[in-house]
Amino acid sequence: MEKGKLFVISGPSGAGKGTICNELIKQSNVALSVSMTTRPPRRGEIEGQSYYFVTEERFVEEIGRDGFLEHASIFGNYYGTPKQAVYEYLEKGRDVILEIDVQGAMQVRRSCPDAIFIFVLPPDLDELAFRMTGRGTESPEQMSRRLEQACVEIARVVDYNYFIVNDKLQDAVESILAIIRAEHSRVTDTIVSRIAAYGMASGCSEN
Amino acid sequence: MEKGKLFVISGPSGAGKGTICNELIKQSNVALSVSMTTRPPRRGEIEGQSYYFVTEERFVEEIGRDGFLEHASIFGNYYGTPKQAVYEYLEKGRDVILEIDVQGAMQVRRSCPDAIFIFVLPPDLDELAFRMTGRGTESPEQMSRRLEQACVEIARVVDYNYFIVNDKLQDAVESILAIIRAEHSRVTDTIVSRIAAYGMASGCSEN
Repeated sequence: MEKGKLFVISGPSGAGKGTICNELIKQSNVALSVSMTTRPPRRGEIEGQSYYFVTEERFVEEIGRDGFLEHASIFGNYYGTPKQAVYEYLEKGRDVILEIDVQGAMQVRRSCPDAIFIFVLPPDLDELAFRMTGRGTESPEQMSRRLEQACVEIARVVDYNYFIVNDKLQDAVESILAIIRAEHSRVTDTIVSRIAAYGMASGCSEN
Repeated sequence: MEKGKLFVISGPSGAGKGTICNELIKQSNVALSVSMTTRPPRRGEIEGQSYYFVTEERFVEEIGRDGFLEHASIFGNYYGTPKQAVYEYLEKGRDVILEIDVQGAMQVRRSCPDAIFIFVLPPDLDELAFRMTGRGTESPEQMSRRLEQACVEIARVVDYNYFIVNDKLQDAVESILAIIRAEHSRVTDTIVSRIAAYGMASGCSEN
């Protein structure tokens, strides 16, 4: 059976990554990895679905047993992707989506070089500020810090394989679904050996 | 305006490339490049649509004026892709599909390094032989030569970006449409500079 593939989605806070990921799991068979964090839940966030909300002690324990695919401390809170669930999905042939920041993405690139990296941009930074205000859970200082962070992050698009401008939600979702489908047609080392075997099974000689 | 992209489709004769390409132009806005050839038309082939059927003299003249993106002599006949039409489509923002053999594809890779290469495989070589018989226009010797050629060609999948097994036509078509869409989201050098400009226009400093 073909293994699943790992897709990493990053982009500035407020680019709409969360909404896109929710649509992706509704509209396809991809599994969304649930992160672990020490930050307090925001209104409406659900334990085990939005995040696993844990204490700092518990998080550090998990780091100790090498339980994360990536983890980072952002604005004083820990965030991490538990390894086990991701690997189980991939082994069962399911594609997995990680919605993580650029620091985390680069850690994943080192541990999973076959992962595919997608960067989501808002139509412009004004729109970003607007979306962040709309969220209504952040102070002006937090927002301004996030906008600065967005500028730094946008420059990191160079480390990604794909970028999506989240202008219209459904377009963005369909672009990512196309990327997922296309990546299953990509020629990789595994595919090359499988196709060589196909040739021999079909009566081609080894040369 | 975003330029079009060039997609090169190859695969053993009988893999169903022609049928796929016809569906692609029906189901999307891609343009199909029409090749020039010195081989005689097969039954049902239409001048200017299937090929431009020309004399050897005319073909050699076109080589002389550097009029081909790629050209080759196969089983004693010349085949070539006229440059001008392809470049015009790309400039106007239309994606172009070239259905050419592996020799031609490698020439295109040298002249257009940004082109995307897709390899189409039949479900198996028995199916290939069956489809070739179905065509009913080839002698047993021609068929056996083409089967040998298919074995050699299949090994060249390593030079391609994507591969598609043409098991069900519509699936194959949709996979290629997904590849075309995904490639428009790919991070390229052009995109990186455009995104840097976007950041600055949105108030990010140059660092």
